[in-house]
Amino acid sequence: MTPPPYLSITTDFGAAYTGICAGVAARLAPAARVQVLSDEVSKYAVVEGALLLEQALPHLPVGVHLAVVDPGVGTPRHPIAVRTGRGDFLVGPDNGLLVPAAEALGGVAEARILENPELRLPAVSSTFHGRDVFAPAAAHLANGVPLGEFGTALRPRPLEIPEPVLGKGELGTVVLYPDDFGSLVLGATPRDLAAAFGPLEHGTELEFAGIRVCWAATFGDVPEGEPLLFADSSGRLALGVNLGSAATRFGLSAGRTVTLRVIRES
Amino acid sequence: MTPPPYLSITTDFGAAYTGICAGVAARLAPAARVQVLSDEVSKYAVVEGALLLEQALPHLPVGVHLAVVDPGVGTPRHPIAVRTGRGDFLVGPDNGLLVPAAEALGGVAEARILENPELRLPAVSSTFHGRDVFAPAAAHLANGVPLGEFGTALRPRPLEIPEPVLGKGELGTVVLYPDDFGSLVLGATPRDLAAAFGPLEHGTELEFAGIRVCWAATFGDVPEGEPLLFADSSGRLALGVNLGSAATRFGLSAGRTVTLRVIRES
Amino acid sequence: MTPPPYLSITTDFGAAYTGICAGVAARLAPAARVQVLSDEVSKYAVVEGALLLEQALPHLPVGVHLAVVDPGVGTPRHPIAVRTGRGDFLVGPDNGLLVPAAEALGGVAEARILENPELRLPAVSSTFHGRDVFAPAAAHLANGVPLGEFGTALRPRPLEIPEPVLGKGELGTVVLYPDDFGSLVLGATPRDLAAAFGPLEHGTELEFAGIRVCWAATFGDVPEGEPLLFADSSGRLALGVNLGSAATRFGLSAGRTVTLRVIRES
Repeated sequence: MTPPPYLSITTDFGAAYTGICAGVAARLAPAARVQVLSDEVSKYAVVEGALLLEQALPHLPVGVHLAVVDPGVGTPRHPIAVRTGRGDFLVGPDNGLLVPAAEALGGVAEARILENPELRLPAVSSTFHGRDVFAPAAAHLANGVPLGEFGTALRPRPLEIPEPVLGKGELGTVVLYPDDFGSLVLGATPRDLAAAFGPLEHGTELEFAGIRVCWAATFGDVPEGEPLLFADSSGRLALGVNLGSAATRFGLSAGRTVTLRVIRES
Repeated sequence: MTPPPYLSITTDFGAAYTGICAGVAARLAPAARVQVLSDEVSKYAVVEGALLLEQALPHLPVGVHLAVVDPGVGTPRHPIAVRTGRGDFLVGPDNGLLVPAAEALGGVAEARILENPELRLPAVSSTFHGRDVFAPAAAHLANGVPLGEFGTALRPRPLEIPEPVLGKGELGTVVLYPDDFGSLVLGATPRDLAAAFGPLEHGTELEFAGIRVCWAATFGDVPEGEPLLFADSSGRLALGVNLGSAATRFGLSAGRTVTLRVIRES
Repeated sequence: MTPPPYLSITTDFGAAYTGICAGVAARLAPAARVQVLSDEVSKYAVVEGALLLEQALPHLPVGVHLAVVDPGVGTPRHPIAVRTGRGDFLVGPDNGLLVPAAEALGGVAEARILENPELRLPAVSSTFHGRDVFAPAAAHLANGVPLGEFGTALRPRPLEIPEPVLGKGELGTVVLYPDDFGSLVLGATPRDLAAAFGPLEHGTELEFAGIRVCWAATFGDVPEGEPLLFADSSGRLALGVNLGSAATRFGLSAGRTVTLRVIRES
C-alpha cells in the first residue's frame, strides 16, 4: 500500500493563518498527511525561509511542500508551483523562496504559474494568497492534478545571496539569519573557511569586529557563555554562544557582514 | 471510504498545554485526524479567538472543533458543545467564543452542557478543563457519541462586540485584535466604510487620530513602512503597515476605538 | 485493526528544527502518526521539559515519545532510548529528561544507548542530534525495530530536583518552571502543604517574601490581578495571578526558592 500523499507547510504567518492554510489543504485533499514544517520564519524573511526549505526538505518525505514568505502578496509577482528532480512539488511565490530547495531536490524539472481559477478558492483576497491560491494548489497537486493544468510555464526567479569574499588572511561573509537558538548562520561554508585559511584544527582562535571566537565542533566544547564558530547542521558556518544567543550577544541580524581572521592556530 | 473524523484545536495555551489536549484527543479517538488550528490566541482574548474561529472554520473540513479561551475556568461558566447547521461540533466554554463560528457554519442547531461525568476524564482539575473536560468531549463526539448524552440543552451566550458608529463624515469602530503581522482588525466592514463615505476608490486618503492612511487593496500598494486601510481576509477592515506592524507603530491594542475620516478622494 | 504507531515530539527547538525532526520521522516511519507535543520548552531547561513529559505522557497514546532538551549535544553524554512499564519508548539524551516520565509510565523497564550507526542518519552532525540520532531512533522504534538492536544497556541518569523543606511554620520550595501563562510551578505538592500547615481551607492567606497570596481552587476565585496559590493541573503547587502572569509580577524564574508561611486561616 502506498502511503498517503505528504504535504508540508512553511510560512512566516504564525500559528493561526498557517492553521487556516492547513485546514484548506485538509478539506481539499482529505487523504493527505499535512505537517507544519514551520510557522515561525521571521516575517518577510525570504532568505531565511528559502534556506530552511533547502536544509529541511531533503529530510522530509517526497511530497508537496507549500511555502509562503511573501512580502509582495497581491502585487504582480507570480504564484508558482515547481516540480523537482526528486519528484516533489514546491508551491509558493516566485520570489526566490523555492529555488535553493528545488536545487537540493534534484533541480527544477518544471515550473508553472498558478493562474487557473478553477484550482484556486472561488474568491481570492488581495492579502491572503496562502489560503486562497497556494494551499488549494498544494492540495490539488497532492490529489494528483497534473502541474500542467495550473498555468503557463516559467523559469523561477533565483534567490540572491551575497557570495563570501576571500581577502588576504580574511573571510568576509554575510549573516543569513539567526536561528531559533540565536546562532548566526553565515553565507560561507567550512570549505570557504579552509580556502581562506587552510585546514584549521578545532581550537583555533579567530576574531571578527574585535571579538574572539573559537573554531569548535559543538557548543559544549567551549565554556558556558563563550562564543564559537562552528559547522552548522545546515552545512554552513555559524557563530554561536554556548548556552546563550549569539544574535543577542553580538547585536547582529540578517544581512550584516562579518569579517573573520585567524589570530591563533590550535 | 469516508475520511477519518477531523478534529481541530484552538487555544490561548501555547504549545505544551495544547499538545496535552491533542494527546488526550488522540488517545480517546485514535481514528481522528487532529490538527492544531492555533495555540497562539492572545491570552484570555475571547473576541480574538471567536473571530479566528469564525473566519477559519468555514475553510476547514466538517468536523469537531475544540476551542478553549477560558478566563473563567473552574468558575460556574458552563462547558458546552454546539452542533452547527453544517454538521460540525464546536466544543468550548460558554463565553461567546463559539457563537460567531457557529453562525458562519449554518447557525446553532443544538447546544448542550458538558456535564456527563462519564464523558470527562475520571479526575477533573480546577484549572485545566481543556485536558479534563473539553478534549475528552471533542474526542467522544469524533467517535460518534450523540450530543444529547453530554447533558442539558442550553442556548449559548452570544459574543458582544461594539457595533461601528456612523457619524457625520466619520466612521467610529473598535480594534478587535492585532493579527500576527501586527495588522489591527477593526469591527467595521468594507460595507460600513461605503455606508459612511459612499464608494471609495483605492488610493483615497483617510485619517484617524491625525494619522494619514491610504485605502489600498494590499500591502505592496503603498511604500515600505507606510500605513494602509484594507479589506482584511477575514472580511473586516484592518489597519496595516507595509512590511511593518501597525500595532507597534500606532500603539493600539484590542478594545481601543478608531475614528476614520476621509481627507482626500483618489 | 490496530491504530498506526503514535510518535510524539517535545523539544526546546522552536518550530523549524522540530519540524525537521518530524519530517525525518515521517520519512523513516511513513505509517506513524506524528504529533508535536511541544516545541516551546524553554531553551536548555531540562527540568521543565522533564516535568512536561511527566505530566503529559500519561494522557497520550502508548507510543514512541521523542524528547530533546540537550545542552550537552555533541559532548560525551549518551543518547538513549527507554522502554517503560506501560510499553512506551522514550528517546532522548541521558540527562534526566526522560526519567520522571518513565516513572509515571510504569518505570524504566529497559534502557539502551543509541550507538548503532545503522539506526542513525548516514552523516551525524555535532549540533543536531535531534535530526541525526534521536528522530531516526524514534522512527525505527515506531517501525518495530527491537530496542536491543540500538546498543548497550545502561541505567539512565536521574533528574535532580531539590526537595521541599518543611521548617517551623514554613514550607520552602523551588520554582521548577514558569508555565505558558506565567504561573510558577513549585517543587512542593498539596501534600507537602498539608504536612507543613495541616489541612488548609481554600481562602486561607499565605505569604512569601512579603507578598500575600490566597490558597484558592482556581484563578477566578480571586479578583483580577490578585495572586493565588493553587494545586496545578500537573499535581504540584503553583503561584498564579488571575488574568495575569506571576512570573512577570514577582520577577521569579526557574531555580529560585520560595518560602511560604500561613498568615490567616480561612
